Amino acid sequence: MKGKHFIIYLFCALALSSTAQITNKGFKIIPLGVKGGLDESNLSSYMVATSNSDNFICLDAGTLNAGLQKVANSRLLKEVSGEAIQKQNIKAYFISHGHLDHLSGLILNSPNDIAKPVYALPSVIDVLKNNYFTWKSWANFASEGDKPILGKYKYQSLTEGIEVEVPETNLFVTTYSLSHVNPYESSAFLLRNNKDFLLYLGDTGADTVEKSDKLAKLWTAMAPLVKNNQLKGIFIEVSFDNSMPDKALFGHLTPKLLMLELNKLNNLADSKLRGTKIFVTHIKPCSNCEENIKSEIATANNLGLQISYPEQGKAIQLNN
Amino acid sequence: MKGKHFIIYLFCALALSSTAQITNKGFKIIPLGVKGGLDESNLSSYMVATSNSDNFICLDAGTLNAGLQKVANSRLLKEVSGEAIQKQNIKAYFISHGHLDHLSGLILNSPNDIAKPVYALPSVIDVLKNNYFTWKSWANFASEGDKPILGKYKYQSLTEGIEVEVPETNLFVTTYSLSHVNPYESSAFLLRNNKDFLLYLGDTGADTVEKSDKLAKLWTAMAPLVKNNQLKGIFIEVSFDNSMPDKALFGHLTPKLLMLELNKLNNLADSKLRGTKIFVTHIKPCSNCEENIKSEIATANNLGLQISYPEQGKAIQLNN
Repeated sequence: MKGKHFIIYLFCALALSSTAQITNKGFKIIPLGVKGGLDESNLSSYMVATSNSDNFICLDAGTLNAGLQKVANSRLLKEVSGEAIQKQNIKAYFISHGHLDHLSGLILNSPNDIAKPVYALPSVIDVLKNNYFTWKSWANFASEGDKPILGKYKYQSLTEGIEVEVPETNLFVTTYSLSHVNPYESSAFLLRNNKDFLLYLGDTGADTVEKSDKLAKLWTAMAPLVKNNQLKGIFIEVSFDNSMPDKALFGHLTPKLLMLELNKLNNLADSKLRGTKIFVTHIKPCSNCEENIKSEIATANNLGLQISYPEQGKAIQLNN
Repeated sequence: MKGKHFIIYLFCALALSSTAQITNKGFKIIPLGVKGGLDESNLSSYMVATSNSDNFICLDAGTLNAGLQKVANSRLLKEVSGEAIQKQNIKAYFISHGHLDHLSGLILNSPNDIAKPVYALPSVIDVLKNNYFTWKSWANFASEGDKPILGKYKYQSLTEGIEVEVPETNLFVTTYSLSHVNPYESSAFLLRNNKDFLLYLGDTGADTVEKSDKLAKLWTAMAPLVKNNQLKGIFIEVSFDNSMPDKALFGHLTPKLLMLELNKLNNLADSKLRGTKIFVTHIKPCSNCEENIKSEIATANNLGLQISYPEQGKAIQLNN
């Protein structure tokens, strides 16, 4: 009888473990801010977790509190205040570049946060260290730089192309360098949950305008994942509509340039990009900009891509 | 007949001029943000004009766009968008100190603004120049510092105690140095419209806690204006409730310390502070902080002062 019980137990355990592994795929994304400037209450920031977890990393942190209040009010998570969600559910920050609209929320909300790591490329950590957490702009809540060092946020220096594991999240992140008014460096973060991937790009110009090959290199790295249907989504910026001349883009994309770059990736991926969902971020507010950009993208979408627009506080599930 | 017409004309002109002078008193204040941290959509910023003008100066700029949208929606001014109000109605910025929650909106909204002056003490201009408008944190839209210099915002260096005239506004401003975690410097701005005055304090600790005499000096300068019923209002911070110990105040006031300081001013002003309206700003959000602070101030208000709490987008008239 003992032997029989053991076999039943073993069977159940294996079945449960296998179910857990099957369900542990895909991603859950909660945008805390989606716009590309001006409106302080809605600037680039995206919480991402594996689909079966409420332990998130936060990709950029332009707006935190105003977005977290919306998340708390809509009861997307069990914590009932924005502050509690920031403390408990965000396990690490990844900052794509040093511009204020991608990190203002991190600085402003640091006094009420708890200790956690801040991941970034060395050039981005330099900006945090020399310009923000300096005792001139703000108390130094970070782990290096001007003294006294309060040490709440531990800088974690990223190396391009090297995957890091983020504690408590089951997420793995590989970073790629982007060009945002050459030679200013921005970053793309490739997130992995088991065999599923999600790509988030910080601000970037097109290779043709930036005189750069950084997006070409990124697309080469992404192509196999697209081919294998492993890249579930791409978050990529379109800041201006097509009326903006190249010389006034300041390291950003337009609908035309977005489609130019996505066509390159699609070509490298045996025309399989339709299997990857595209999320357009960072639209800069102006009277008709959002409408124009959406209309121009719809017109230019010759590949039949699944393109949508994240909204602040509206969760996105990527499980397919 | 010619002589009679001239006398009538002269009489009318004198009467009109006299009426204009009589009505040109007091102030109109539109708070763009009132909180002391965390919530990016509602951080310290106050538009102030003479009561008969829509040409404002902006005292601090923690939040601009989110507040300006509210102002536009409630049709407080004739311009129908936040961006138009920023461009047309704000003629100059006065920044009290270099902390991000007092200037984030200025940086973030600089791309869409038009040319205008930014007034601050030299130590504050140094922070703007070395930490924000640096091409690392943000494009250099200012008039000095890292090249290329875009020159949209002309730095205007203030000297303590020296009154400056702000073009296009009929406002005159005198600056006083404050202590915000000694020796970090903050500022108070004394605005004058003819013979009426308004005092705005950036972040400040109490003299007893800061080991400073800066508030004592400020109160000495303000006392004659209070006695003469010329000081129409004081905007002053209370960041924490009385439960916060002195060592954790980080250069801020509590209700207890506010009343301690206001009693000093009242004593210097022959107990006439009741004629000056007190506006409490910069409450730091937490679950019960706002209620606690209001209750503690009401209890501690032994002088019977007129104390109120500005709200974002709600205009305040000070004409008495």
